Amino acid sequence: MQSAVTVLGLGPMGRSLARAFLDAGLSVTVWNRTPGRDHELVERGAVGAASAEEAVAASGLTVICVVNYDAADAVLRAAAVARALKGRTLVNLSADTPERARETGAWADRHGIRYLDGAIMTPTTTIGTAASVYLHSGPEDLYREHRPLLEALGGTHTHLGEDIGRAAAYDIALLDVFWTAMAGYAHAVALARAEGITARELAPFAQGIGAILPPLFAQTAADFDDGGFSGEGNPLTSGASSMAHIVHASEAHGIDAGVMRAAEGMARRAIGLGHGTDGFIRVAEVLGRHR
Amino acid sequence: MQSAVTVLGLGPMGRSLARAFLDAGLSVTVWNRTPGRDHELVERGAVGAASAEEAVAASGLTVICVVNYDAADAVLRAAAVARALKGRTLVNLSADTPERARETGAWADRHGIRYLDGAIMTPTTTIGTAASVYLHSGPEDLYREHRPLLEALGGTHTHLGEDIGRAAAYDIALLDVFWTAMAGYAHAVALARAEGITARELAPFAQGIGAILPPLFAQTAADFDDGGFSGEGNPLTSGASSMAHIVHASEAHGIDAGVMRAAEGMARRAIGLGHGTDGFIRVAEVLGRHR
Repeated sequence: MQSAVTVLGLGPMGRSLARAFLDAGLSVTVWNRTPGRDHELVERGAVGAASAEEAVAASGLTVICVVNYDAADAVLRAAAVARALKGRTLVNLSADTPERARETGAWADRHGIRYLDGAIMTPTTTIGTAASVYLHSGPEDLYREHRPLLEALGGTHTHLGEDIGRAAAYDIALLDVFWTAMAGYAHAVALARAEGITARELAPFAQGIGAILPPLFAQTAADFDDGGFSGEGNPLTSGASSMAHIVHASEAHGIDAGVMRAAEGMARRAIGLGHGTDGFIRVAEVLGRHR
Repeated sequence: MQSAVTVLGLGPMGRSLARAFLDAGLSVTVWNRTPGRDHELVERGAVGAASAEEAVAASGLTVICVVNYDAADAVLRAAAVARALKGRTLVNLSADTPERARETGAWADRHGIRYLDGAIMTPTTTIGTAASVYLHSGPEDLYREHRPLLEALGGTHTHLGEDIGRAAAYDIALLDVFWTAMAGYAHAVALARAEGITARELAPFAQGIGAILPPLFAQTAADFDDGGFSGEGNPLTSGASSMAHIVHASEAHGIDAGVMRAAEGMARRAIGLGHGTDGFIRVAEVLGRHR
């Protein structure tokens, strides 16, 4: 082994990870399925491997970050790569479902690969800085062993437990918040433009809305866990009324309102089930009810 | 006139407004369609009017805040109330569409009522504090005349222009961001519970996601206005892949994923139109394209 860490996958996130390891003074081997992505990293001192199995064999720890587990499997489950990984540690920072993470954990077990599953919760630009956030799950001793190397990426690292699917479960739930919010913002920007308001004019106020979300997340989490669902000051009926205005104003401009129609539908169903005076988080309880 | 300001509508927000005016030392007259809502306010020194027209006649400035413009119209357009409002100023802080605000502006003109339209962008608990945010639109001189009284509510007041519908247009776009994000959070909490994660466990990380939204709002607003749509570091295809994982994980638990299905649909359409390497805000341009 000639490197401290191998990075497989050199998309925007993989490149950022490799750069951060290099910046921390570590020896790094890199590989990407499509060649030619490693030039800048090799210039910075990384070793560009000729194959995935050669890359894996170069280090005790391999980090893979590709678009999803189909892409990760296409690399990892090649016989030569799986063989090279035997007895080594693999940290999979690709995003996918908890189910896929658990299935990959079982595959790693069958092949004698020491396996941690993880998720990166912040954009590529944060990697290597204090602003980056990483979630990990899998055997705690394995996490502890590799934690110093992983912490070379900077930021906050949290081990969520031994269930290998737990990081992916958090990831999915948190990306749910992120992408839904971004979809709402994109829609709002389109609606504002139809009303003659530029995105730059809207942005400072949208940032204000963004700022009131975190305390609301904390407060309604407690309501949800405790089954309180207090709607004092902001009953579900009032939210549904706002949502209907948004749908109407959007469609009156010929702008698709499918996301808000679906959100309003969740609220209307909860109201129909008798929860109109509850707070909005009742919707979460209704969504999960028929399990 | 025996009061500085009249408040019509004593729901949670109307009561908060009346309390803030009273706390600022102003004489306040209050009225609500359903009687009995004014007890606490009258104890604090407000005058409880017997009718809406009596309430309006008590002050030079009437503020109305009810669930929507149907509810506002049911109060304001009674002949006796419209007569009492003649020559007085009405500030409508109820939420509805820009179209309804403009229609109400035209009605006010026809009845010789001086009219400002506004929106409250923060929860009831912020009213009277520095954290409250108010948007106003309508004649600038009228806004200036009543600004000192309105500023008794605390917080930040912004006059957005003479177009009477402008405050409602901002309101709709900003509530679009807010309610979509809350729908995403409610869904995430339901999905997390199905994975054995409590809302309290998820909340600190969800707050972290909330914290990365405001800078992204500012950055993507500039992309949108300038037509840049840069997807470097986070192409639309990568977002769509995440969204598909969320839909899959949610539905695998029997949890409706209608909101995320609609959001993923927006992304897939933009990708289908050739914008897969662009950033997510391209979705906003595609949404507004066929106007």
